[in-house]
Amino acid sequence: MQICKTPADLKVLNAQNIGFVPTMGALHAGHLSLIERAKAENAFVVVSIFVNPTQFGMNEDFSQYPRPLEKDLDLCAKAGVNAVFTPQVQTLYPFKEAISLNPPKDLLGFEADLRPGHFSGVLQVVLKLFNLVRPTKAYFGQKDAQQLLILQRMANDLFLPVEVIACPTLRDSDGLALSSRNTYLSPEQRELALKIPKALNTIKEAYETGITQGTNLLALGQEVLSPLEVQYLALVNRQLQPLERVEPNNSLILTAIKVGTTRLLDNLWL
Amino acid sequence: MQICKTPADLKVLNAQNIGFVPTMGALHAGHLSLIERAKAENAFVVVSIFVNPTQFGMNEDFSQYPRPLEKDLDLCAKAGVNAVFTPQVQTLYPFKEAISLNPPKDLLGFEADLRPGHFSGVLQVVLKLFNLVRPTKAYFGQKDAQQLLILQRMANDLFLPVEVIACPTLRDSDGLALSSRNTYLSPEQRELALKIPKALNTIKEAYETGITQGTNLLALGQEVLSPLEVQYLALVNRQLQPLERVEPNNSLILTAIKVGTTRLLDNLWL
Repeated sequence: MQICKTPADLKVLNAQNIGFVPTMGALHAGHLSLIERAKAENAFVVVSIFVNPTQFGMNEDFSQYPRPLEKDLDLCAKAGVNAVFTPQVQTLYPFKEAISLNPPKDLLGFEADLRPGHFSGVLQVVLKLFNLVRPTKAYFGQKDAQQLLILQRMANDLFLPVEVIACPTLRDSDGLALSSRNTYLSPEQRELALKIPKALNTIKEAYETGITQGTNLLALGQEVLSPLEVQYLALVNRQLQPLERVEPNNSLILTAIKVGTTRLLDNLWL
Repeated sequence: MQICKTPADLKVLNAQNIGFVPTMGALHAGHLSLIERAKAENAFVVVSIFVNPTQFGMNEDFSQYPRPLEKDLDLCAKAGVNAVFTPQVQTLYPFKEAISLNPPKDLLGFEADLRPGHFSGVLQVVLKLFNLVRPTKAYFGQKDAQQLLILQRMANDLFLPVEVIACPTLRDSDGLALSSRNTYLSPEQRELALKIPKALNTIKEAYETGITQGTNLLALGQEVLSPLEVQYLALVNRQLQPLERVEPNNSLILTAIKVGTTRLLDNLWL
């Protein structure tokens, strides 16, 4: 496995079909499932590990975000990754003033309201990484549903020569969606956090019995989530526009829940 | 010469080393000099002709901007261009809400103040065109100096796999910098507009005799330009920061002059 620290290191890869998995490190089984899919679909797999400062807000967890680099490299090597890109901040941001990007207005709300500037930072770093790595396909988890929709829009709107591929959320045996931020939870908080997958499951089961009205489905979810702090729980279509009823294969239940100081995202694709 | 109207048409070009000249059409000898340079340096030359709506302000000349397409295609064919890309607006802007870009803050002022949103639109369309055409080198005129600096920054900051090449301004025999907008000038206005190259020449000659202080050089320029409406006349370095004295090979005299309703840009690279 090649370790590339600079853009120049990447240039020698020279591979034709690159599958790319951009990460902030602290890899878990969710990331490994993206890598596995990339391995299956591409001759050469590149993983980037970069905690991107521009997608964190002032009072967010940039400095405390976990950075277990040695363990991550080991996981990548064992997963058969061909090259890992581990740039420094000043490498990806060479200028004092940068070109910045604005997410499309129709895909705002939700995380964009709660984390001003977050998606702008995500677009910026992903565009830079795409231009450096030049992948044919790039893999992102459905857990960050809004991010996924915005990145797919970027690829399509800017005519990037890369396909942005959505991969299913992986869950721990207790149902909690895998996230690098789960390590912030105390055992008691983790127990409380299990209300999130339970609420989504309750909604899913009600939907499968024929309930399709958003207010009813969301009310069930709200009851299960109580007394957690629900930042949002919404039914939207896959263009992020509000829906009154589930549209089969075009709907999303999105939620963000605060457990202690930790924000947890989860969602259901219906 | 191939005429490509859609992104799909471009894909079949499949050329290795593409030299790219993005234009808004209404081609003049300035454009032809960019094409000539592209021909000399690349196996395959693509010219785009697209009057980009997002770089025009509300009260600007988008609708009246000249669009002599047949003549332009003829000029391209005669100049040995390999392919011309002539997309429709809805082809380059497929979504109701687009990803937009912000120019770097240190390269604002001047045109950015007088044409709010202009460079955002330029970055947006050039990034799209670069992603579609995938050139090795792209050619821009020094007449639009600030645009050139911002595009070079974009290429470097976003790690675009393209070299943005600056080409010297071409002038008519009377000294006026070539511009598609010169056609807006009446004969009397054109006569008045000649004060612009005269002012820059006066500054250049004074500099060559040893005058380097900005206030002195600019005062000479102002006198020659009078009574024209000077929107700006400034001495900056090539990072667009104000200079008190000329720094050899790192300086720019920038000017924007309004003649009737027509804005004319010109500059001097010292």
